[in-house]
Amino acid sequence: MNRKSKALSQDNCIDLINNELENLRVDVNRAPKNLYEPINYILSIGGKRLRPTLVLLAANLFADEIKDAVKPALAMEVFHNFTLLHDDIMDKADKRRGKLTVHKKWNENIAILSGDAMAIMAYELLRHSKSEYLSEILLVFNKISLEVCEGQQYDMDYENSNNISIPDYLNMIKLKTSVLLAGSLKIGAILGGAGKKNAELLYDFGLNLGLSFQLQDDYLDVFGDEKTFGKSIGGDIVANKKTYLLLKAYELANGQQKQELDFLLSEKDIERSKKIQRVKSIYSDLRVADYLKKEMDYYYQKSKVALDSVTIDISRKEELQSFATNLMKREN
Amino acid sequence: MNRKSKALSQDNCIDLINNELENLRVDVNRAPKNLYEPINYILSIGGKRLRPTLVLLAANLFADEIKDAVKPALAMEVFHNFTLLHDDIMDKADKRRGKLTVHKKWNENIAILSGDAMAIMAYELLRHSKSEYLSEILLVFNKISLEVCEGQQYDMDYENSNNISIPDYLNMIKLKTSVLLAGSLKIGAILGGAGKKNAELLYDFGLNLGLSFQLQDDYLDVFGDEKTFGKSIGGDIVANKKTYLLLKAYELANGQQKQELDFLLSEKDIERSKKIQRVKSIYSDLRVADYLKKEMDYYYQKSKVALDSVTIDISRKEELQSFATNLMKREN
Repeated sequence: MNRKSKALSQDNCIDLINNELENLRVDVNRAPKNLYEPINYILSIGGKRLRPTLVLLAANLFADEIKDAVKPALAMEVFHNFTLLHDDIMDKADKRRGKLTVHKKWNENIAILSGDAMAIMAYELLRHSKSEYLSEILLVFNKISLEVCEGQQYDMDYENSNNISIPDYLNMIKLKTSVLLAGSLKIGAILGGAGKKNAELLYDFGLNLGLSFQLQDDYLDVFGDEKTFGKSIGGDIVANKKTYLLLKAYELANGQQKQELDFLLSEKDIERSKKIQRVKSIYSDLRVADYLKKEMDYYYQKSKVALDSVTIDISRKEELQSFATNLMKREN
Repeated sequence: MNRKSKALSQDNCIDLINNELENLRVDVNRAPKNLYEPINYILSIGGKRLRPTLVLLAANLFADEIKDAVKPALAMEVFHNFTLLHDDIMDKADKRRGKLTVHKKWNENIAILSGDAMAIMAYELLRHSKSEYLSEILLVFNKISLEVCEGQQYDMDYENSNNISIPDYLNMIKLKTSVLLAGSLKIGAILGGAGKKNAELLYDFGLNLGLSFQLQDDYLDVFGDEKTFGKSIGGDIVANKKTYLLLKAYELANGQQKQELDFLLSEKDIERSKKIQRVKSIYSDLRVADYLKKEMDYYYQKSKVALDSVTIDISRKEELQSFATNLMKREN
């Protein structure tokens, strides 16, 4: 049998996931409505399903039959949406994917409790992992889940702090975003029967790809094309978000530029477009985008090396490689 | 060897639990502080540790060596405290066990996130269950955890509803309180190597004991002795809480009594002690306490039958029986 013949495409993965999601939706169509309807709602307003796709692609690297990985894959999506639900309360966000957030559409109490229920549901999906891998998978999942909480806490702490270093920032985005991508790959690899070494390499692949991706997000928010980026440009600047660009700018700024930045970040009456333009102009003078791109590329190359080192036929890796390429080409 | 010689007392259990709790406290003494300090705080402000005690006593019914059950036992305590943390946000409670609640001492965002982290920590403790039982234990735990969320949602829904029946109420307290006690016993039984039948009987024992206990709580809040009850008497009346007593009173009241109750529940200016006294007087006229005691006794007897039916030497059951007796004798 040709090992390549059973390689799943990303589209195949999405189909499997949506199918399982449909089963879950039927399952949560029950009382009490105020607990379960918000779960159904947040799971049906879209999203790219990156994490479950990564589980399935990683499993498929090592196993042709990946049916057993579908429920655990969905667990990653449900857990991710649980964190979004609670993060939106904490960040007082009104919209998510163009729709009202759960705490706005219902209320905060319902959003807290529905989120809690989703965390439990994620574990119930994860429980369907093959029993020989269950404990190992839980260990990975518990570790990264706790790290996601740590990342969100650092993110909140940093909002009110004025001396965050770039290593602090990179550590925060690693915890908040990358470990869940990395963990999805590692869990998929375990489910596919990969050895310890290969599972760890896939974790590294995801961790570095995630960092690169998050840095790209910082870049696109300022320098991207509104149409393809999907969000309005300059949002991070308007919100005074301490992104890589802003932190690097403060690191490199001379006295006058620092004063200008301080002024732009504290002045409430400045017009949105003017604020964006003036901050961007400092970013250009200091060439912070170049530093960012270098860092972004550094992590992307590291991710490539990790994937290249996985000891499996190169033809099996094409889909994961194309996943990474697509992820990092959002601006085109 | 005398089978009874290895029977643990409730005090032995508490020692084992406190010891494990100390390990956990050392483990969470880390950054970010705003995530982990609240966890340490809520776990150190006391509580009767009923749920982990039940895990250990149930395991000890069937096994002399219960070391493997200590971490899973603590999981039940950590999960319980996670629900308290989030419930206190939802209920806007300022105090818990005489101390400031986490969302008051820190803030709501921190309380949401620390709670989330505790839920994950509960699963990590549970993961230490013997691997042959892990999937079964997770299945039980996930089911009851979701039911606890359902119970809290019904509790919130019922606050704003005017036609709750007594069966609705009993179902709500079953979900919100009893299933976690029942599940603790069942999980302990599984860990001790009990068969399906005995594990189920212990679940029934806990479920019915929990219902009886919660009904007793409703009773003591109105008719108890302030010194032994530990809370100020009449709190449920002042808060218009829809307890068994109030629901039964509405069920039995004549037109005039209904009007009087409606008045007492809607009038804002009435003095606390006067409100308590007048509601109590209606309760006495309608003999609702007698109905409650009958119901309480019904569930207590059912719990006894379940425990009696467990197929293990009667001498092994003494400690659990005394646990139940102590729990139901709080007024003396």
